[in-house]
Amino acid sequence: MAKLPKHKVRRHAERGHYDPATIHAIIDEAYVCQVAAVRDGLPVVIPTLHARIDDTLYLHGAVAAGIFKDLSHPIPVAVSITLLDGLVLARSLYNHSANYRSVVAYGVAREVTAPEEKLAALKAFSDRVADGRWDDARIPNSVELKRTRVFAVPLDHASAKVRSGPPVDDPEDMDRPTWAGVVPITVVRGQPEQDPGQDPGVSIPSYLGE
Amino acid sequence: MAKLPKHKVRRHAERGHYDPATIHAIIDEAYVCQVAAVRDGLPVVIPTLHARIDDTLYLHGAVAAGIFKDLSHPIPVAVSITLLDGLVLARSLYNHSANYRSVVAYGVAREVTAPEEKLAALKAFSDRVADGRWDDARIPNSVELKRTRVFAVPLDHASAKVRSGPPVDDPEDMDRPTWAGVVPITVVRGQPEQDPGQDPGVSIPSYLGE
Repeated sequence: MAKLPKHKVRRHAERGHYDPATIHAIIDEAYVCQVAAVRDGLPVVIPTLHARIDDTLYLHGAVAAGIFKDLSHPIPVAVSITLLDGLVLARSLYNHSANYRSVVAYGVAREVTAPEEKLAALKAFSDRVADGRWDDARIPNSVELKRTRVFAVPLDHASAKVRSGPPVDDPEDMDRPTWAGVVPITVVRGQPEQDPGQDPGVSIPSYLGE
Repeated sequence: MAKLPKHKVRRHAERGHYDPATIHAIIDEAYVCQVAAVRDGLPVVIPTLHARIDDTLYLHGAVAAGIFKDLSHPIPVAVSITLLDGLVLARSLYNHSANYRSVVAYGVAREVTAPEEKLAALKAFSDRVADGRWDDARIPNSVELKRTRVFAVPLDHASAKVRSGPPVDDPEDMDRPTWAGVVPITVVRGQPEQDPGQDPGVSIPSYLGE
């Protein structure tokens, strides 16, 4: 197999970060990642849920059926995770930008088959939804466990890219009376909405933070 | 060149949508897309800003330098856009899911060089940030226009996938006293924060909705 792509941030190299703490924090905050692979020589990309345990990124295989169909050979993947933090409005349109924290990881996906590792990964998916959910909902039975596919990607070829702060304008634009600044973007978890098919007497669990 | 991948939704085919109205609405609501391509036989994926005009998806080329470096041949890309709407908590962990609206588009990226089309695409990027910004900020000069690269992907090989609504549990789990429902997820634009380097007398423009 060819060597994995270089994972150094090239454009705006000053925004690159390679320390696990920065990379892990971005992965752990995001709900969705995008998994890219090559199929018949062409690129494919699919969104899926993920979770991290130590230096391993786990991908929920259910939504990645199109990528992980043929496992007779190792599958190189590129995984992208992006948190958008703000729209950066400069005095010139050219200097408009975005504040963001993103991670790209390159690696060869491995299917997780050992029951212990698979359960740990599924619990990590569950913990990301709500820490406490795993002990409250019905855990997977053996048939469900077999049906749920999980893939692992090592995080040793990952990099983060971060932009934050106000716009950076050219000196000659600084006195222009165009408002400049940042419109913050946040992802908000709203008030839980109960399944209308359930007895309203069942109260919202404390681990949902209500 | 090989044929573009099939763009039919395979898993959960009932969630697939192919009408332009559904596809366009998802593209227009999202701020960020993920562009996947093949480089040296391996997958690469990069987040970038995008905008749509009619049936064409425009990609901001600045952040896609790693993908669109060698334009001596056509570049097949896969573009993924995902809006996460909620975490779906079922009575069983197996039936946990997510509410989302996503689009995947396959196509061959073309660099936009005609000044008129390029300007229209840049205005579309700007309109997505805030309709009105284009007439307020300094528009690109000829040097900036040359430096800003824009790529176009036709939307004729695109599909949408949508899940909404409460969890779907197995009949035998329905009486389980585990709270079931949806935790809504929304993306919120916050109060604009002015560049500290600007005179506070410059007021927030009305097109930012404040």
